[in-house]
Amino acid sequence: MRQPLSPPALDQLFRNARTFNGWADEPVEEDTVRALYDLLKWGPTSANTTPARFVWVRSAEGKAHLASLAMEGNRAKILAAPLTVIVGHDLDFPDALPKLFPARAQALRQWFSDPAVAAVTAMRNGTLQGGYLIMAARALGLDCGPMSGFDNAAVDLAFFAGTRIRSNFICSLGHGKPESVYPRNPRLTFEEAGRFA
Amino acid sequence: MRQPLSPPALDQLFRNARTFNGWADEPVEEDTVRALYDLLKWGPTSANTTPARFVWVRSAEGKAHLASLAMEGNRAKILAAPLTVIVGHDLDFPDALPKLFPARAQALRQWFSDPAVAAVTAMRNGTLQGGYLIMAARALGLDCGPMSGFDNAAVDLAFFAGTRIRSNFICSLGHGKPESVYPRNPRLTFEEAGRFA
Repeated sequence: MRQPLSPPALDQLFRNARTFNGWADEPVEEDTVRALYDLLKWGPTSANTTPARFVWVRSAEGKAHLASLAMEGNRAKILAAPLTVIVGHDLDFPDALPKLFPARAQALRQWFSDPAVAAVTAMRNGTLQGGYLIMAARALGLDCGPMSGFDNAAVDLAFFAGTRIRSNFICSLGHGKPESVYPRNPRLTFEEAGRFA
Repeated sequence: MRQPLSPPALDQLFRNARTFNGWADEPVEEDTVRALYDLLKWGPTSANTTPARFVWVRSAEGKAHLASLAMEGNRAKILAAPLTVIVGHDLDFPDALPKLFPARAQALRQWFSDPAVAAVTAMRNGTLQGGYLIMAARALGLDCGPMSGFDNAAVDLAFFAGTRIRSNFICSLGHGKPESVYPRNPRLTFEEAGRFA
């Protein structure tokens, strides 16, 4: 039976982890981004569809373009962060099934040929992969600043033109400035958020 | 600067973690479920909306009912697992904002009064919380068996009647039988799943 991770590890992933709004002037190296992807990619998705697609925005031009499409309150954060990743999901994810699930690719493509099934599968599993990204970043010692305040359609046009990839949320990554963290808000109790059955 | 977690911790969360389809006959104790919630609840959501709602199905009657609403291939898994959690999201999540974000509750309720905004916020952030649940379970040494093959509308009627909570996916939790793991399928390369910009 596996043991729980150490209390400091649980602190780093969950209890002490916070959303950052300001960033130290240190790059996130390409090796770190690749290590991050090499962790998050293992997270489970329905029929191994792995529909998430990522644009790792780190150039000055890319940050300026993305910031210009964000809500005003998010612009300075994006410009200050060393990297902000756009998490999208590909509505054409079934095209990759011959690689991702060779034993059942034909039957799965048939199943996902219903556009409504494909759309909810892409959103659900692409978002799960976004959650794995946040947890993997924290596991690697990075801080996160996830945001959904931006113009999705404009971001799709700017960063996913010519594809059926749809932006979902964005997340700044780096080493956060402690003073940029807002006071923590309460959470629901166990009973407020659910029940046994 | 925070350090990466140890290689064995990264293995437990990501690299060696697998989806289980069969389960040892050991309960998941209530204390463990509460510890799991007390970790996952800290994961970030848009404006601290935390729209996920959970039904922790562990009774024989609950498991039989849930299994009867699942795709045939998932029924035996649900019956064998000590616990299967239904992850839903509450379309009425804005009602909790006076508790969850007191400083901005009024403005946020106005923002979320658009049903389309509320729906996508509930799905996006409820799913993220589902991802945090999977990672928190693994962090506590539990194995996961997430599934989306069930009748969502029927589950809503059976487990969320009289609410605007919508089921999203379900996840068995416990100690998985190693022989119940399927061969691992490939993942997309970094370049197949994204790019720098």
